[in-house]
Amino acid sequence: MRKTYRITVVGGGSWGTAIANLLGNNGHDTILWVRNRELLTVLKEKRENPIYLKGVKLSRNILFSNNLEESLKNRDIVAFAIPVSFLRGVLKEIKQKPNGMAVSLSKGIEIDSFMTPTEVIKESLGIHEDGLAALSGPNFAREVAQSLPTATVVASKNKETAMAVQDAFSSPTFRVYTTSDVKGVELCGAMKNIIAIASGISDGLSLGLNARASLITRGLAEIVRFGSRFGAKRETFMGLAGVGDLILTCTGNLSRNRSVGLRLANGETIEAILSSSKMVPEGVSTVKAVYMYSKEISVELPITQEVYRIIYEGKNPKEAVKSLMNRPLKEEYYLL
Amino acid sequence: MRKTYRITVVGGGSWGTAIANLLGNNGHDTILWVRNRELLTVLKEKRENPIYLKGVKLSRNILFSNNLEESLKNRDIVAFAIPVSFLRGVLKEIKQKPNGMAVSLSKGIEIDSFMTPTEVIKESLGIHEDGLAALSGPNFAREVAQSLPTATVVASKNKETAMAVQDAFSSPTFRVYTTSDVKGVELCGAMKNIIAIASGISDGLSLGLNARASLITRGLAEIVRFGSRFGAKRETFMGLAGVGDLILTCTGNLSRNRSVGLRLANGETIEAILSSSKMVPEGVSTVKAVYMYSKEISVELPITQEVYRIIYEGKNPKEAVKSLMNRPLKEEYYLL
Repeated sequence: MRKTYRITVVGGGSWGTAIANLLGNNGHDTILWVRNRELLTVLKEKRENPIYLKGVKLSRNILFSNNLEESLKNRDIVAFAIPVSFLRGVLKEIKQKPNGMAVSLSKGIEIDSFMTPTEVIKESLGIHEDGLAALSGPNFAREVAQSLPTATVVASKNKETAMAVQDAFSSPTFRVYTTSDVKGVELCGAMKNIIAIASGISDGLSLGLNARASLITRGLAEIVRFGSRFGAKRETFMGLAGVGDLILTCTGNLSRNRSVGLRLANGETIEAILSSSKMVPEGVSTVKAVYMYSKEISVELPITQEVYRIIYEGKNPKEAVKSLMNRPLKEEYYLL
Repeated sequence: MRKTYRITVVGGGSWGTAIANLLGNNGHDTILWVRNRELLTVLKEKRENPIYLKGVKLSRNILFSNNLEESLKNRDIVAFAIPVSFLRGVLKEIKQKPNGMAVSLSKGIEIDSFMTPTEVIKESLGIHEDGLAALSGPNFAREVAQSLPTATVVASKNKETAMAVQDAFSSPTFRVYTTSDVKGVELCGAMKNIIAIASGISDGLSLGLNARASLITRGLAEIVRFGSRFGAKRETFMGLAGVGDLILTCTGNLSRNRSVGLRLANGETIEAILSSSKMVPEGVSTVKAVYMYSKEISVELPITQEVYRIIYEGKNPKEAVKSLMNRPLKEEYYLL
């Protein structure tokens, strides 16, 4: 018999809901915390999240709550599925430090602090890094909710923590690998969203599949170049949280960041795009965080730079592509 | 003014035709050699290749010929765009060693010899490796023919050779990078077709995008593990000829190897698939070559093995996927 964990998922977006459902189906005592009262009512009545994960019947093992304090009492694991821009705000509401492990399910970077989600959690809650983990990989929420085969990575400085999360989250269709490279996993998870926007722009301008494949490859080079400065491991870039998630987000139609790029290429403004979307496309803030920081530490990130200019300086996407194409020819290999 | 080269492309499939057209448009004195007399007649009359590259008007700078000896006289560059299984046969017909550089445009491995295309050319024609190059990257022929933006890599042990090919092939929409890692570039070009078949099988079984992204990632790990044994460079795996071409071939609908996988998943036999296709899906023979060789040198290639079993031992694709999914969970990172 498998061990049963008491787990709370904080955040009822599509990913939080899908993970809570996975954990419920794994037989764990699961709480899904959501702030929105109306959503809570629907979740309780219908056992479905019609806003973020329509059509998926949720596990009977999930208790829904909007009481944060109650939700976090005596839990083995607390998992945060909150967009990075709202993460610190939610964490501030937590008065009592949770006594179990904390797992980040978010993919992004806090703009002003340039901190990753686990760093924000660590600072806000005062949790030791041994009790922290980040879960990331090529994981569209809807497919996980449909029990389609999926692989992911859980990163923790502490091997036991990583293995406990692996133990709790693994299912016959959800394969969880472990690693100790927390920073690498989180940087990959954040940066791939920038390249996904670029990829959407390329597709939106009908540049073709050759161009998109090259763009993703050069995007990977930017992730490697930037991430290496933070001690991220080469293996992480080549793994599920790196190239795996990059491929998924840049080529998959379910990707919200790629959709942002498609719409930008179509001439829509970023304001119009953001105001019409229920989901938070993390790449829009991540590109700002990464671009600003890359200036500070003098790392050249041409794709990131052009995406930043399109979103924050109103540069025409076609002009941005030209800028990328007209860079001088050289030997292929970027600094690794 | 750019330098004009005398170049012959041997082979009038889609890639040979697209490259001849590119070279013609670059202003070079270009010959396209084809064996098929009927095709030759149509090429001459219509300046179009209706079998392999329908709808593309070919450059006026191309001379079409089926006389191999004449086509190879006094050329600066001879480029071979012949499926690997037919390459040695064509080379045997060449009586006089060409005096210019030789460029391989093929992506595959010769089954019995386990030689790459440039190795076959070297052995057959007695050309020194300084005069040899391989061109490879995320390049669908049709998109190159449509002048959609494309990037590629030319590999040669000799820097001047690489730069001459770069000079001749580059155009405003066809960016050519150089490298010295010939073996790495050729192994990547060959092996990605195996993973493309696997990717088609995954899609054909409707396993979803998460599964496909994981499969491509684990496939890259196989390419790295295998290629490293031949001294291939890490940068090559991460570059256009490596991850770039892998992404293109595994996710793009124009990929013939991926189509083979889709049809296998659909229950068609490999004989039926091969007999109904005008194009040669290189992956079908490459998987045999690589699988056999991996046994010899004891490198574990689980995806390659399953694709081999499906194609050559009639294993049910669903069973093959189960075999892959049921491997024991471990730390993520494969030997790099």
